[in-house]
Amino acid sequence: MSKILVFGHQNPDSDAIGSAIAFAYLAKEAYGMDTEAAALGAPNEETAFVLDYFGVPAPQVITSVKDAGAEQVILTDHNEFQQSAADIREVEVVGVVDHHRVANFETANPLFMRLEPVGSASSIVYRMFKETQVEVPKAMAGLLLSGLISDTLLLKSPTTHATDSQVAEELAELAGVNLEEYGLAMLKAGTDLSSKSAAELIAIDAKSFPLNGNQVRIAQVNTVDIAEVLERQEEIEQAIQASNAANGYSDFVLMITDIVNSNSEILALGANMDKVEAAFDFKLENNHAFLAGAVSRKKQVVPQLTASFGG
Amino acid sequence: MSKILVFGHQNPDSDAIGSAIAFAYLAKEAYGMDTEAAALGAPNEETAFVLDYFGVPAPQVITSVKDAGAEQVILTDHNEFQQSAADIREVEVVGVVDHHRVANFETANPLFMRLEPVGSASSIVYRMFKETQVEVPKAMAGLLLSGLISDTLLLKSPTTHATDSQVAEELAELAGVNLEEYGLAMLKAGTDLSSKSAAELIAIDAKSFPLNGNQVRIAQVNTVDIAEVLERQEEIEQAIQASNAANGYSDFVLMITDIVNSNSEILALGANMDKVEAAFDFKLENNHAFLAGAVSRKKQVVPQLTASFGG
Repeated sequence: MSKILVFGHQNPDSDAIGSAIAFAYLAKEAYGMDTEAAALGAPNEETAFVLDYFGVPAPQVITSVKDAGAEQVILTDHNEFQQSAADIREVEVVGVVDHHRVANFETANPLFMRLEPVGSASSIVYRMFKETQVEVPKAMAGLLLSGLISDTLLLKSPTTHATDSQVAEELAELAGVNLEEYGLAMLKAGTDLSSKSAAELIAIDAKSFPLNGNQVRIAQVNTVDIAEVLERQEEIEQAIQASNAANGYSDFVLMITDIVNSNSEILALGANMDKVEAAFDFKLENNHAFLAGAVSRKKQVVPQLTASFGG
Repeated sequence: MSKILVFGHQNPDSDAIGSAIAFAYLAKEAYGMDTEAAALGAPNEETAFVLDYFGVPAPQVITSVKDAGAEQVILTDHNEFQQSAADIREVEVVGVVDHHRVANFETANPLFMRLEPVGSASSIVYRMFKETQVEVPKAMAGLLLSGLISDTLLLKSPTTHATDSQVAEELAELAGVNLEEYGLAMLKAGTDLSSKSAAELIAIDAKSFPLNGNQVRIAQVNTVDIAEVLERQEEIEQAIQASNAANGYSDFVLMITDIVNSNSEILALGANMDKVEAAFDFKLENNHAFLAGAVSRKKQVVPQLTASFGG
């Protein structure tokens, strides 16, 4: 039996990378599987902080499973094929650990699949450590905690599940960190956008969604100062126009999220701005508008756009 | 919050009905959900034996979720929409417990999903009883045991997972039955086909599979004597032709499975018999052929037909 690659989605965030590394470890320990963690992109600044903090090397970056010498994969933190490896349809998905909706996903054979509507894929991986009674090493606890903090913006996002606070407390204890202090430091590490080109900025955390025949790109950047990001609006808009043209996106929706006050500014460009405005019941002025209380792409942006673009 | 209906696939078998009743019970006890078991058809003879043996009333039969007064559902023992309720795309799937491949399934929101490549959905429900430390009532243990026995033909099918023997032993203990004796009595109860019309016989356990533009119906009946079933070949073929015409099936593949010796006779009619023959590397004579060692539609028939019909 050859190795099984374990990886999160494209444009990996701390949950994608943390859940993949920790699940690859757990699957070895609990089930004796020959698993190996990978990632569909380099760590972003936040994840680089996390890996450095807990002394874990970044996983190998792959684009094709077969080129990496594997035929079987386990997906964490995603299931939609367009968010996965380039050759995902040509290999066997033997497992999925995820907390997203299911779409554009199918298999030829029965598989292991564990989805829960909770704050992070890392929350689920941690639950599986407990169920299988595998001890959680300090570094693994740190990665899982970071995945949960990242995806829930320190338990403030509406995607946070009732069980996640307890998970965060237990993981912080196991990782030997103070939840609030570590969490804020980690999130802030991801908001230093000064070293990023505009093209890099819009790709930090971006996913594609096929909506009723349109290809909608929805990206998110975290900041402690929305105005500071908007100072670069012209440059960012050029990068978005270039990305739409190069990749055939009909629309690009960028969430600029204030992680301290839990709000977002939406900057949007594309062919269907009427539908974007209808989705959020706001009016774009100079291509952007404020969305009070919105921090979650999954709960506060994707469903609204899906409904507005129509079935 | 209104009630959540829990049900297995169309043409329910003992695993579909047993896993639905037991999971509806577990979800109430463990998670405080307002669940109610249902079924997309009346119990077959085997399942009727099971329900009678453990003194459990048959669940309500529904075809439409909304007509039954619900908006949310949990699916057990299936996920493909064409095997589910008529209005499955119009309601919210909040959970799935299954042991099949994933296909023709998608949701708008994150959900609870628990799939394992094991012998029965009942095996997974039992594991969840243990994880949540909810006591398994005798009747629930009996239903789960019956689901596992039914789907694995008393642990003889290649779909049986390494963990299933242990599950069967524990459930037999909890249900207060002798595994072998009860299992054989139960399976035999399902093989009395004499009271069935040919149209009923081909519908006992039948599922539709869209294969490369074709609608392929794959049915299975259990027997202790294949020859006895083939005595009714003419009548069965007429029922198949009528079913193909009425439902637009391109092909109908009937597995007549000898549960004692673990073999099947394949009786097939339709537009793509060349592909059926290629799938199993046999020659149909008078529309049927012997498939040694084949007892599992899921492992020994569906993948072979899927490959032969092509992507």
